[in-house]
Amino acid sequence: MATVAFIGLGNMGGPMAANLVKAGMTVTVFDLVPQAVEALTSQGALSAKTACGAAAGADYVITMLPASKHVQGLYLGSGEQQGLLDVVSKDAVLIDCSTIDAGTAQLVGKAAEEKGIAFMDAPVSGGTAGATAGTLTFICGGSDAAYNKAQTVLTVMGANIFHAGAVGAGQIAKICNNMLLSVLMVGTSESLQLGIDNGLDPKVLSDIMKVSSGGNWTLEKYNPCPDVMESVPSSNSYQGGFMVDLMVKDLGLSQQAALASNSSTPMGALARSLYVNHARQGNGKLDFSSIFEQFANQKSK
Amino acid sequence: MATVAFIGLGNMGGPMAANLVKAGMTVTVFDLVPQAVEALTSQGALSAKTACGAAAGADYVITMLPASKHVQGLYLGSGEQQGLLDVVSKDAVLIDCSTIDAGTAQLVGKAAEEKGIAFMDAPVSGGTAGATAGTLTFICGGSDAAYNKAQTVLTVMGANIFHAGAVGAGQIAKICNNMLLSVLMVGTSESLQLGIDNGLDPKVLSDIMKVSSGGNWTLEKYNPCPDVMESVPSSNSYQGGFMVDLMVKDLGLSQQAALASNSSTPMGALARSLYVNHARQGNGKLDFSSIFEQFANQKSK
Amino acid sequence: MATVAFIGLGNMGGPMAANLVKAGMTVTVFDLVPQAVEALTSQGALSAKTACGAAAGADYVITMLPASKHVQGLYLGSGEQQGLLDVVSKDAVLIDCSTIDAGTAQLVGKAAEEKGIAFMDAPVSGGTAGATAGTLTFICGGSDAAYNKAQTVLTVMGANIFHAGAVGAGQIAKICNNMLLSVLMVGTSESLQLGIDNGLDPKVLSDIMKVSSGGNWTLEKYNPCPDVMESVPSSNSYQGGFMVDLMVKDLGLSQQAALASNSSTPMGALARSLYVNHARQGNGKLDFSSIFEQFANQKSK
Amino acid sequence: MATVAFIGLGNMGGPMAANLVKAGMTVTVFDLVPQAVEALTSQGALSAKTACGAAAGADYVITMLPASKHVQGLYLGSGEQQGLLDVVSKDAVLIDCSTIDAGTAQLVGKAAEEKGIAFMDAPVSGGTAGATAGTLTFICGGSDAAYNKAQTVLTVMGANIFHAGAVGAGQIAKICNNMLLSVLMVGTSESLQLGIDNGLDPKVLSDIMKVSSGGNWTLEKYNPCPDVMESVPSSNSYQGGFMVDLMVKDLGLSQQAALASNSSTPMGALARSLYVNHARQGNGKLDFSSIFEQFANQKSK
Repeated sequence: MATVAFIGLGNMGGPMAANLVKAGMTVTVFDLVPQAVEALTSQGALSAKTACGAAAGADYVITMLPASKHVQGLYLGSGEQQGLLDVVSKDAVLIDCSTIDAGTAQLVGKAAEEKGIAFMDAPVSGGTAGATAGTLTFICGGSDAAYNKAQTVLTVMGANIFHAGAVGAGQIAKICNNMLLSVLMVGTSESLQLGIDNGLDPKVLSDIMKVSSGGNWTLEKYNPCPDVMESVPSSNSYQGGFMVDLMVKDLGLSQQAALASNSSTPMGALARSLYVNHARQGNGKLDFSSIFEQFANQKSK
Repeated sequence: MATVAFIGLGNMGGPMAANLVKAGMTVTVFDLVPQAVEALTSQGALSAKTACGAAAGADYVITMLPASKHVQGLYLGSGEQQGLLDVVSKDAVLIDCSTIDAGTAQLVGKAAEEKGIAFMDAPVSGGTAGATAGTLTFICGGSDAAYNKAQTVLTVMGANIFHAGAVGAGQIAKICNNMLLSVLMVGTSESLQLGIDNGLDPKVLSDIMKVSSGGNWTLEKYNPCPDVMESVPSSNSYQGGFMVDLMVKDLGLSQQAALASNSSTPMGALARSLYVNHARQGNGKLDFSSIFEQFANQKSK
Repeated sequence: MATVAFIGLGNMGGPMAANLVKAGMTVTVFDLVPQAVEALTSQGALSAKTACGAAAGADYVITMLPASKHVQGLYLGSGEQQGLLDVVSKDAVLIDCSTIDAGTAQLVGKAAEEKGIAFMDAPVSGGTAGATAGTLTFICGGSDAAYNKAQTVLTVMGANIFHAGAVGAGQIAKICNNMLLSVLMVGTSESLQLGIDNGLDPKVLSDIMKVSSGGNWTLEKYNPCPDVMESVPSSNSYQGGFMVDLMVKDLGLSQQAALASNSSTPMGALARSLYVNHARQGNGKLDFSSIFEQFANQKSK
Repeated sequence: MATVAFIGLGNMGGPMAANLVKAGMTVTVFDLVPQAVEALTSQGALSAKTACGAAAGADYVITMLPASKHVQGLYLGSGEQQGLLDVVSKDAVLIDCSTIDAGTAQLVGKAAEEKGIAFMDAPVSGGTAGATAGTLTFICGGSDAAYNKAQTVLTVMGANIFHAGAVGAGQIAKICNNMLLSVLMVGTSESLQLGIDNGLDPKVLSDIMKVSSGGNWTLEKYNPCPDVMESVPSSNSYQGGFMVDLMVKDLGLSQQAALASNSSTPMGALARSLYVNHARQGNGKLDFSSIFEQFANQKSK
């Protein structure tokens, strides 16, 4: 069986690592928070005193970190401190599952390539529910060889695994998708409210648009109008799901990419502005489908 | 068999009426253009000298006209001139398939109601191909009784028949849908171009987003990026399909509704501006997926 | 001295009529609200039992009404009821100061022209303060002859009188101006907040931009950021001034014009969406500079 | 008299340095392009073999460079190569006139502060005409002491000198201003075109709005509609002035700042999208007022 190092045991990383343990792999974990480590060792994982200690000798090294600076620091080291690239086996496959900017992924990828180490960015979607169920979506950027080899671990944690292109392409594809998702969500919200304002039943309108040319993922799985679908955040006071603050983060990454490539994204930029306004009004912890409330007539409540 | 009057034999109305003839119904047609009438009589339709002459005594009266003013004039008459409501049988069901503003539909509907006549707005989608194949989508606004009775003729011409609500609701639901469609198209276009600008293959990116949370009708059926899908307008120099000028018309109707109900539709309004700019640059006769070209780097061509 | 009929004695019309009385003109007033009439007769105005009664025989007929339907009804009459155009002297100049859509102004203007009566649309800006002080701005649409003759009464009520073009042009020019004003207000608000978020003092930033290429009326006269300028609504909890609901109305008229002429106004349409959202959150009665609050960080309050 | 080092002798830096020479100062220049150096030495400047050679011992060090990376590299050095901060006199005032992101300005400012050296960011506006005439606007970020001392050289090159705040504040204020300018330009363009589409004369409409609440710098100095003002780019086929590509650069910096501070700038973001589209259609070298053409009806040309 494969030996795996897993670094970063937060809301997502914890259950992802647990699925590898359950699959019978030898998993050595590391996190700065002792409780997060204990939660895994109690399920059968090994632990190490440092990230580099966990990674040394492993067949697969998987990282799940909050932001670009953590990824860069961990892989490349800084000053006296060694980075993962200094300690891992030459045969190892390194997989970063964090959602960060593509530029940082490419920087790390280039440093790995110079040392002959296989590196892949593989940001995920599917939330904590998907992490626990092992049904995440991975969007990977890296060589064919790395992509193929990584199947061993990715298929344990996820249900859909895509190969978007070279290193960095995973990040780009993910933020293109999430930017488009935000546009679908805002566009669907304002269309439903326009219908409501003109006397339509949102459930009837949703049913019509879902199977017409307005059909999209949000109508299918995640209707933003309360009480149209069961078991979605909009029918539960917008609790749970994917937080507004996280959508703001992803839309920031998409705009960062658009600036770097001198691209025009009028809808994505507008969605970001609307989501930032929404967050600034105190809604950052609500599910992102709560943008619907920006269009609803609050006075009539 | 039912007797049907069909008034307005343009690109859409012509093949719709023809399907009713083929189904064995007695169809009396009228149009101001003699050739349009002849095309139908050669297939077995009867003709009348006036619209009112065609409508008098028919079980179903179907109209397919360019704009609100034509619908209002035909149904209500003006000055000396009789309107359809003055001549039709009290048992007839009147079905207007034009795409017009909901206010005019409601005006006609109210006048009909006062005379005890069943009226329904039933705008269509599916284009000339759907009209010919008898696979149109009808989105109906009217009473349950009218809706049920109309099935006799609508199922001959269409594959999907929705009941959106009371008179006018068909128009509202259609323009909500088409506004959302325009948002999907623009959002998908800019997301694909952002990916391309950052080195992704648009086919790979489309495949990923199609089955992810960015999934929507345009990725499924109508990809705007050339050479990603076969047999769509984008792979045929944006010829055929649904013209930019028609999308501009529908987006105008959606904004008219938003003004009437004091609704906010930032994405729909932005889509309209982008489509108007696109049309003004001389692209009005191209398919509406050509909005993709607004984002592509023309200099690099 | 000129004899004037003044119809519509609301917040604007009342003080406008009073200035004509003070100037020594013979003013006959009409309003549906008796108290409004009494307020004027107590200052020396005459009154009439009907609008037509007030207008018959007057040299100038001035109207100040809430919306298009009132203007159309009053001038053209309906059914049995006479309109102003049926009773006024052929030498009279009719001046409608309401802010309405240009189409209705043109409809009334055409009916007047057919009867050989001089009609002008002359919407105002300057608020109730300007109405009281006699310092309003009038933007007129009509013939040179009507414009010249109207100076007699307009200069009593206003300080700036513009001739925008033929009948209807006054309305168009006003809504172009107010649409642009809304763009200045939103753009200035987000620019100031961007500076604040990055550590700048909004007063210093305002002083710099005011005399630079960002200079505009809102920085000069109506800074939206609290406590940058004295005696403006932003420094008085956004009380007074020009209400959000009225800006929403004017932006609706600008979008109605843009639909009629198939024009693209992306910034104006976006401003309307943001103002509608703002109004729907319960801010309709605040001054329109309160849009600044959409950009401020409410969480940090 | 003060001794000045001037590094970066491009279209802006060249004439700026020349004005210092004309004022009798001892100016030592450096540029990678020999011809740019010779143009200055022929006017009386001294030259140095390296940037550091020019800067050593000078009372004032002024830099005018294309982008952030050049500024960072020059001031901080890299690897073996010394930076300006390693060689300048402790009493010198360092003034960077480049337009770059505020973060880089702050990075250099912090490094300077640690060495006890006075540093100021002072981006300019006014174009090559202002550089030649010595009428530039400087927007400065730095300590009061640095700001006061810098007057000696800034007043020779500029007519308006603002103190926006601490190091970095000059950049922020400049991009806030230029973002607002882009909004004024787009908003004015679409308002004028809306008027034109509805029959107004753009000159008349401009005259009205200029003195009304729509008044702004573009109406006053830089009308985007051809043939409304003389001697502006719009009346000269949009040649000269401030290029679309430069506005795209500045709007990119404003969006970078908005991402860093998590700010919402819907109008600025929309302006950037419209300008990027405009540039991608091949208009990058035109004056930025050419955005007017996006709204004009090209078909009617």
